[in-house]
Amino acid sequence: MTYCVALKLNEGLVLLSDTRTNAGLDNISKYRKMFTWEVPNDRVICMMTAGNLAITQAVMSLLQENIDRPQDGIHTLYSAESMFQVAEIVGDAMRVVQQRYGQGLAAMGESAMSSIIVAGQRRGGVLRLFHVYAAGNFVEATDDTPYIQIGEHKYGKPILDRTITVDTPLEVGVTAALLSMDSTLRSNLSVGMPLDLAVIRADTFQFEQKRRIEEHDPNFGAISQAWSDALRRAFDQIVVMPAE
Amino acid sequence: MTYCVALKLNEGLVLLSDTRTNAGLDNISKYRKMFTWEVPNDRVICMMTAGNLAITQAVMSLLQENIDRPQDGIHTLYSAESMFQVAEIVGDAMRVVQQRYGQGLAAMGESAMSSIIVAGQRRGGVLRLFHVYAAGNFVEATDDTPYIQIGEHKYGKPILDRTITVDTPLEVGVTAALLSMDSTLRSNLSVGMPLDLAVIRADTFQFEQKRRIEEHDPNFGAISQAWSDALRRAFDQIVVMPAE
Repeated sequence: MTYCVALKLNEGLVLLSDTRTNAGLDNISKYRKMFTWEVPNDRVICMMTAGNLAITQAVMSLLQENIDRPQDGIHTLYSAESMFQVAEIVGDAMRVVQQRYGQGLAAMGESAMSSIIVAGQRRGGVLRLFHVYAAGNFVEATDDTPYIQIGEHKYGKPILDRTITVDTPLEVGVTAALLSMDSTLRSNLSVGMPLDLAVIRADTFQFEQKRRIEEHDPNFGAISQAWSDALRRAFDQIVVMPAE
Repeated sequence: MTYCVALKLNEGLVLLSDTRTNAGLDNISKYRKMFTWEVPNDRVICMMTAGNLAITQAVMSLLQENIDRPQDGIHTLYSAESMFQVAEIVGDAMRVVQQRYGQGLAAMGESAMSSIIVAGQRRGGVLRLFHVYAAGNFVEATDDTPYIQIGEHKYGKPILDRTITVDTPLEVGVTAALLSMDSTLRSNLSVGMPLDLAVIRADTFQFEQKRRIEEHDPNFGAISQAWSDALRRAFDQIVVMPAE
């Protein structure tokens, strides 16, 4: 399994992914699920993947291959004129890969389900955040729901619903994403450390942060512990339900 | 969908269920999922159901039918000598119903999945809490994990993991169950008000509370709002992750 979450705030984008993959509970590995592209002063793009690992790796490789070996008439992440075009390119790559392997996987009873978060900003455009599905179609985050989750999304959703609006400051968004991940890590063994964090401040066209948070990172541990303590204190202060 | 949660604390049992059932998002109904039996000074039993409604209703009806029309050699909830026997009787009824309808449902591509929480106390025994599966087998809550959830369990699990131990006082357990339900209600439309709450204090062999909490119950609303406010305050106090 996997958990990836992305926030699109007025101040910028926050992206956070875990690194655990598993084929059954007895076959656990560590894979990076966050992929980044950056052209200073021009564009900054971050993607995160969930689902069938062979499918999403093939999509990422195809996108990179098209950059490395440009062909006439093939748009790439570096030639796209907008983030919308970037999402289309990712969706097209997803459809190519699904057409190649989808039937074979279905014949073996394996799932080809996969999804990709695509986020970034192209000079001349605004911040965009998309969720690309296995069929290559996609939806975009809006001000009403300024976040997208893929993978094991349920445990970490309540805290986002309670804390995140588009006006949330960028560093507070980072905390919310980390706590959403923390809730998921505690409840589901198939999501695991280390984490990959990326932060893109609006109109800078570069990564303000792009880092790996290791298992025993003292700052992440402190946030996790502080939240746990704060929840306990909050819970202890809640009035009890009067009996009838 | 459904969400039911039961806590087995040293002081007693807390049981809470929603009342929403759905066959698709466009076919939503209200059904009681909590069923109770009480013989003063002898036994108190509470069950909650999730999954295929026809299956779980048939199990409940069969259990009641066996009480109403007793037959030689057929143990009932009222003749069972222990809560373990009660769980076996429920499991047996589940197997009978599954054998009757399981194949037909499978042939139509419908799920016969269902599960039942069985809790209570029989004079001479201790509090017991069981999770009966669709195959009629069951597991019991222990001091390590003193709660059982069925249905849409993920959204409401983090708060239980952070707040509940066997030493939690009974009325605090009620609050934790209500907040676990509150998180689920906020995040999943297929779980809905009103709620059914039952509380059984240890060694009393009766219900201390057995009540319906309606949609606009002021006390539940106050707890929900207080928790929301407390979470916001707790979140606002959390330190931010320092940039590298």
